[in-house]
Amino acid sequence: MQADDAGGEDELIETTFAPLASGFPGALGLKDDCAVLTPAPDEDLVLTTDAVASSVHFFADDAPGDIAWKALAVNVSDLTAKGARPLAYLLSLSFPERPERAWLDLFAQGLGEAQAAFGIVLAGGDTDQRPGPLSVTVTAIGSVPKGRMVRRATAQAGDLLFLSGTLGDSALGLQLRQDPTRSAAMGIDEAEARALVERYLRPQPRLALAPHLLSFAHAAMDVSDGLLKDCGRMARAAGLAATLEGIQLPFSKSLRAALARRPELFETAVAGGDDYEVLAAVPPSDADAFRAAARADNVAVTEIGRFARGTGLTVIGLEGRPFVAAVTGWDHFPAKT
Amino acid sequence: MQADDAGGEDELIETTFAPLASGFPGALGLKDDCAVLTPAPDEDLVLTTDAVASSVHFFADDAPGDIAWKALAVNVSDLTAKGARPLAYLLSLSFPERPERAWLDLFAQGLGEAQAAFGIVLAGGDTDQRPGPLSVTVTAIGSVPKGRMVRRATAQAGDLLFLSGTLGDSALGLQLRQDPTRSAAMGIDEAEARALVERYLRPQPRLALAPHLLSFAHAAMDVSDGLLKDCGRMARAAGLAATLEGIQLPFSKSLRAALARRPELFETAVAGGDDYEVLAAVPPSDADAFRAAARADNVAVTEIGRFARGTGLTVIGLEGRPFVAAVTGWDHFPAKT
Repeated sequence: MQADDAGGEDELIETTFAPLASGFPGALGLKDDCAVLTPAPDEDLVLTTDAVASSVHFFADDAPGDIAWKALAVNVSDLTAKGARPLAYLLSLSFPERPERAWLDLFAQGLGEAQAAFGIVLAGGDTDQRPGPLSVTVTAIGSVPKGRMVRRATAQAGDLLFLSGTLGDSALGLQLRQDPTRSAAMGIDEAEARALVERYLRPQPRLALAPHLLSFAHAAMDVSDGLLKDCGRMARAAGLAATLEGIQLPFSKSLRAALARRPELFETAVAGGDDYEVLAAVPPSDADAFRAAARADNVAVTEIGRFARGTGLTVIGLEGRPFVAAVTGWDHFPAKT
Repeated sequence: MQADDAGGEDELIETTFAPLASGFPGALGLKDDCAVLTPAPDEDLVLTTDAVASSVHFFADDAPGDIAWKALAVNVSDLTAKGARPLAYLLSLSFPERPERAWLDLFAQGLGEAQAAFGIVLAGGDTDQRPGPLSVTVTAIGSVPKGRMVRRATAQAGDLLFLSGTLGDSALGLQLRQDPTRSAAMGIDEAEARALVERYLRPQPRLALAPHLLSFAHAAMDVSDGLLKDCGRMARAAGLAATLEGIQLPFSKSLRAALARRPELFETAVAGGDDYEVLAAVPPSDADAFRAAARADNVAVTEIGRFARGTGLTVIGLEGRPFVAAVTGWDHFPAKT
């Protein structure tokens, strides 16, 4: 296999990653120590960083292209929820051992697909070899009109809570990725199961929603650690109370089928995470316009609750009673219990 | 120890890292998913990312403050060599297990010291727990006047090669960090040994040099992977040949003493890496002005060679004969041999 192995760092960068940077002149072909970015006048830059690691955020035997896609998607999702347009990203890769050329080629191919889908290009990076899991750290940069970044903390009492797409498909996909035999008991057929696993493997940031968040949202964030946790964060940041109506939550046909047989999956859906949907606070007066603008761009947005004066997050379960979750969401860094 | 342990991710960010972001309004107190940066008019942004990991780039029992300092310093050094002024950074931390509060406090203290020394502030980040070594990935952002970033590839034939500070102290410090008993055989006393180890642990980016690189350098880069390797990269990028004069290399008094007893340390000095000095290509007509400007800011710069038409890197050893290194420098990602 030796001949198929990747070369040293410089060769690796030149052959595998430089082509991904060809659309960004400031990357200087990845032949410099830094990249240079000329900001457009009247724009702010929006910055975010998120890492994914093998056996924590993805499975070691996931397809290399899926790992690459997810690493970029989770960052672009953050930008999108702020109303930002993706511009460029930096990539820091750590391998426990030298990957084979074939693995790298597929990884680069997945990055290329994600770049094309998200309109973002590689600007620079860092690669090294160390013990521990394969990890991929992305820092993504986007742009918004000056002073217009949509924040997490600026919801107002009376705002309606909107969620894009559907909730819980990715968490269900994760369960099916872990144990495909579960689908039968959930009443999910093979094609549906594949689609759910695909949602877990290849999150789709709601890029088309960004301009409408700028126009209509008082506040927004992406749902990555579970709706309960992230909605709780948004309410706390604004110093408000939030109520979520379980009956209004947008569930896919597959998830509805699974919920009918396994009602406990409601908790998986609201706390499971990895949704990468947008949670937005929109004033009632703009709700119709927001919905119409999103629909015109083929993004469904669903009213799922509202903000009010007070504190705390209340979730009304499917039976109309307050729902108390045993687990409120994904903590990247759990407190010792 | 439980009470001394750090809390969950949100608490960790609020108590440990938010204070480090207080000088950067766009960090929004680390309470949003993204940071926002308003670029100054007429400035380009310079971007770089570098990761350090336990047992690879630092020792597991290094002081937490030193680990923090180094993670930030290696990135700021990249910015400085491009003529950039540091602005802000994002921090991605991976812990194999929950660190104790005392460790985190010291880590944050080291970050704070480095921030103050380098004039950079925390803008955002990401923290998670995963197997493998503690790793710290920094993405640093600096600014330069529009179109003025000093590149690696733009040296010209006839340019003189200048190096800041002294060479090899950090590589020697690493040897003494690994085995303090070596100092006696090197003729290095305890205070000198401490200073050398300190150079390895707390690199000092040559911030004061940045404006003078903008004024006088055709090309520049920081020396982090060893002078031979990095100078070779600079020559190759420009399509030029480079000659380095060993006798002109700036060695500290300690390194000279060690070289007198152990001549093989010449290779350690030129190939060892971790110098974080600036290598600059300056036209002969500007050499005196560059030297004087640097001296006025208390940075020594030494002429160590020159670029010429051709290819390849020639090093003239201390005895006046071409020097051939067994190892040419640090490869983050070594090719299998």
